[in-house]
Amino acid sequence: MTTGMRKEIGQIPAVVERIVAEGGPQLDEVVAAIRRLRPRWTIVVARGTSDHAAIYARYAIEARLGMPVSLAAPSITTMYGSRLDWRDVLLLAISQSGEGPDVTAVTEAARAGGALTVAITNEPRSPLSAAAEWTLDCRAGRERSVAATKTYAAQLALVAALVGKLAPRTGISAGLATLHDTLERVVETCETWLPEADALVASLASKRRALILSRGFNMATALEVALKLKETSRIFAEGYSTADLLHGPVVLAGPAVPMLVFRPRGRTGRMIDEDVARARSAGGRPWVVSDGPATATPGRRRGTTGHARHSAQRLRLPVSVPEILSPLPFVIPGLLLAEAVARRSGNDPDAPAGLTKVTRTR
Amino acid sequence: MTTGMRKEIGQIPAVVERIVAEGGPQLDEVVAAIRRLRPRWTIVVARGTSDHAAIYARYAIEARLGMPVSLAAPSITTMYGSRLDWRDVLLLAISQSGEGPDVTAVTEAARAGGALTVAITNEPRSPLSAAAEWTLDCRAGRERSVAATKTYAAQLALVAALVGKLAPRTGISAGLATLHDTLERVVETCETWLPEADALVASLASKRRALILSRGFNMATALEVALKLKETSRIFAEGYSTADLLHGPVVLAGPAVPMLVFRPRGRTGRMIDEDVARARSAGGRPWVVSDGPATATPGRRRGTTGHARHSAQRLRLPVSVPEILSPLPFVIPGLLLAEAVARRSGNDPDAPAGLTKVTRTR
Repeated sequence: MTTGMRKEIGQIPAVVERIVAEGGPQLDEVVAAIRRLRPRWTIVVARGTSDHAAIYARYAIEARLGMPVSLAAPSITTMYGSRLDWRDVLLLAISQSGEGPDVTAVTEAARAGGALTVAITNEPRSPLSAAAEWTLDCRAGRERSVAATKTYAAQLALVAALVGKLAPRTGISAGLATLHDTLERVVETCETWLPEADALVASLASKRRALILSRGFNMATALEVALKLKETSRIFAEGYSTADLLHGPVVLAGPAVPMLVFRPRGRTGRMIDEDVARARSAGGRPWVVSDGPATATPGRRRGTTGHARHSAQRLRLPVSVPEILSPLPFVIPGLLLAEAVARRSGNDPDAPAGLTKVTRTR
Repeated sequence: MTTGMRKEIGQIPAVVERIVAEGGPQLDEVVAAIRRLRPRWTIVVARGTSDHAAIYARYAIEARLGMPVSLAAPSITTMYGSRLDWRDVLLLAISQSGEGPDVTAVTEAARAGGALTVAITNEPRSPLSAAAEWTLDCRAGRERSVAATKTYAAQLALVAALVGKLAPRTGISAGLATLHDTLERVVETCETWLPEADALVASLASKRRALILSRGFNMATALEVALKLKETSRIFAEGYSTADLLHGPVVLAGPAVPMLVFRPRGRTGRMIDEDVARARSAGGRPWVVSDGPATATPGRRRGTTGHARHSAQRLRLPVSVPEILSPLPFVIPGLLLAEAVARRSGNDPDAPAGLTKVTRTR
């Protein structure tokens, strides 16, 4: 069975290619406005899956632009009716549908208060797009599955493209230019890996609980994959920063709780390893998604850690992109996994019971 | 059996009283510094339970001072080594022990970058206190239980006191002045309610999953009670804003998943009711903690909703404080509940396996 969700995950490389090919003019206008108005702080407003793209934006903007970022609590505007000081603020409003009354209300308040407002949405004729001064179009085509996948990837790509243009020496723009090829390879790699990871699919489907872990840019990946497991299979999957995990929730780790770790290379990967070692000592046996150059497989040759290097518990993606771009390749196996778990659990990932494509909260 | 945790929850009224009686001079110094330097933006850094006091600070400062607040991602400083623009920033660093290397590192970076730095800690001679220019002492006395309770309440009280002094017309300071009496009544009320809520204790202990919900100022309460259920009983308890719940996780709701709602009066309560109605239609049967004037029990007299008004599923606290202070009374039944669930599950809430009092992450 091919679900719409699976098909739409397969479209992610093409969506990213389209953003790179066609998104330039819109991005250039927003970049020019930012250079003109010089906002000093960013506030990102979003709900649900888009909130994870917002978390990605937070890490990307703070780490590469040095500008502090806040994730908005819409209730401040919609429930308490408080007026924030919006001067010198870049407001990014992220929404697949552009239909959420709360996200639009915050955008209107921000614009009225003097913020530079930018909508990132797949619906450039939505209320959100009308409320914001500028729109970056996700160009993902219609998303039929209730579980957002390609629109999430598009949101990440647009945030990365924006940061790349504002920080030209970071290699982000160059990495984005060839990313669609890399993502195609990732989709192919996952097609081999997923049948091998059958034990993980079965474990998630039967245990009904999970810990999904990462840190830094891929915090967004962990939270998004956890949300997908909830939405499509009603699994109590919690996404955590490995550092936050140690401040209490590590007690949930153990042999009966599947643990999935998104581990990029470099210092971030080493810090994640340190944290995860403490979850391992509690009996957790993590499944690890990592990355590395496409041609070399040093882990297999060296086998230094002696831990599951050869097994299906480890998926090494053939990817050598800057870490800031890694949430795009990393989320693909996570989304495919959630889709496989949903089917294994007897659920329809395209139309999970109790959810609709557009959620209107205020 | 009286655990240290239960005893320390019982000390919360006295801790709040001590902060009001003795904390004034330190608070006045910090308020004077804020008035002098006029920061435009607040960043709060914390981990674990203190991170929930940080979330409270976020809502309190934005709603009552209109100053945007960001919850820091320590990894930006400790992992990516990025330099944030700290000018015009008020940095609040919240930590029970003051020993976390990451929280201290962010405080040092903020101070070096020109931020006004304030530590809120129970250990005024800790590394964190040395790193920050100013310290607000929690005055909670030694906390023996690994699960932080009275120090969390002290952090909330200090944040509320600071906001109250900066926004004198909000009634916060007046509310705090008599809050200890109110909290004593809450502790007494809970002693009656908790045996009546035995079905909830049994359900949490046996189902091993839970949804803990609120919105606004009590978002902190929901997250903190969820964390306590994790820490002391290894329960997959997830804390959610009721609005965020509707963006996916609502599918977790159902008869097999205990649901606890912290519902303050007024507009917030009505908006929570609207959201929870959708979780009810998924089969969830919420337990509700609410508040109201001590002498009247309109719910019981009117019985308009016809839903569990008279049953132990509803705990009406004899409290009529401003909503911004309600997280202090509301967290008490939540903490007592977690302690009762831990004992029912055969765990020692004072020393949960796998946790230590001080967690050092970087």
